[in-house]
Amino acid sequence: MKVAELSRRSGTSVASIKFYLREGLLPSGVATGRNQAEYGDDHLKRLRLIRALIDVGGLSVATAREVLSAVDSPDSPHRVVGAAHATLSSTSARRNPDDPGWQAARAEVLSLIRQRGWFVPDDAPALDEAADAIAAFRSLGQDDLLMVLETYADAAALVAEKDVASVLSRRDPGDLVEAMVVGTVIGEALLNALRRLAQIDASARSPLARPVG
Amino acid sequence: MKVAELSRRSGTSVASIKFYLREGLLPSGVATGRNQAEYGDDHLKRLRLIRALIDVGGLSVATAREVLSAVDSPDSPHRVVGAAHATLSSTSARRNPDDPGWQAARAEVLSLIRQRGWFVPDDAPALDEAADAIAAFRSLGQDDLLMVLETYADAAALVAEKDVASVLSRRDPGDLVEAMVVGTVIGEALLNALRRLAQIDASARSPLARPVG
Repeated sequence: MKVAELSRRSGTSVASIKFYLREGLLPSGVATGRNQAEYGDDHLKRLRLIRALIDVGGLSVATAREVLSAVDSPDSPHRVVGAAHATLSSTSARRNPDDPGWQAARAEVLSLIRQRGWFVPDDAPALDEAADAIAAFRSLGQDDLLMVLETYADAAALVAEKDVASVLSRRDPGDLVEAMVVGTVIGEALLNALRRLAQIDASARSPLARPVG
Repeated sequence: MKVAELSRRSGTSVASIKFYLREGLLPSGVATGRNQAEYGDDHLKRLRLIRALIDVGGLSVATAREVLSAVDSPDSPHRVVGAAHATLSSTSARRNPDDPGWQAARAEVLSLIRQRGWFVPDDAPALDEAADAIAAFRSLGQDDLLMVLETYADAAALVAEKDVASVLSRRDPGDLVEAMVVGTVIGEALLNALRRLAQIDASARSPLARPVG
């Protein structure tokens, strides 16, 4: 199909398609003239993935490019989980690994993981991200909000087991990696939205909903 | 304290402090000269909150400004949950409410909420966000990943009940709103990091970790 049809079928403007081509997120079509190229169903599929990662998953263009390159060179399935997480992880501009408060928070995360017997390598970026959040609670003087920690870990375990089960039927390594990336990124958006809905409900049922008297 | 001390104690550069002042995230200090101002502990506290929302919570400067203005004008606690969510919600550039696929996804979210008896107003932005994610799964042909939906809702309910319980001890409306904002934004980062750690563990225990033979 021509770029105009690709645009129509994907609901993406021609300008955006040209941007994704230039930025290396979308592979080039087959050139059929000086300024014309032919695109296939793979391009349509890739374009849908790009839009989902950026618009729904909230990824930056640069992060989406890294994630897509992991999808294009599938590694062994289990190692891919770590690779997908690594591309998705942001190093917080704020993080100061020399700060005793941050070190204490990271030790707290490691101890939580070990108590639960979770198999997680010591250099998993998500360990640092969890430490960032815990250190932030403490630096804001909101230590008591951390009473949620064990419940969060329970919920995370529940969700993650289902996440992994949901991709196991994929045979092709490329399909498996794509399912993992979509499940991680879009699944995160879904879980966060459901948490907000459940918060509205929990708040409505709580003393917070009573008129101030 | 002078801006240099505010910078040192908050670990934030003077340039960043001046940026937050200009952008209206940080209130002005008390002018003590043509180019000098005096800052107090409230400024230090506010600066820590700004950095946590932006660096750990991943909010944009514009979203952080809206959230902080909700913190500064506390409404009734329960209504504040909705207000905090509204400021945090992004309208997806991609969302097309006329698309039958999106409408079906939104109906699916509403039906999930009603089956569970959750008290959620029909215009809660998180309903649209959940619909965005479900529509994305379907448009990517990853419908079967949606087998996670009920488990996600269970986990969200577990987490949200604890979220609300964790802020109930706050008496002052301003403190309550700040705790809700921090719990929602930083809690989301914490939950997402724990989900990734749990995914690594679940993947390690699954057939995915077996060598391809």
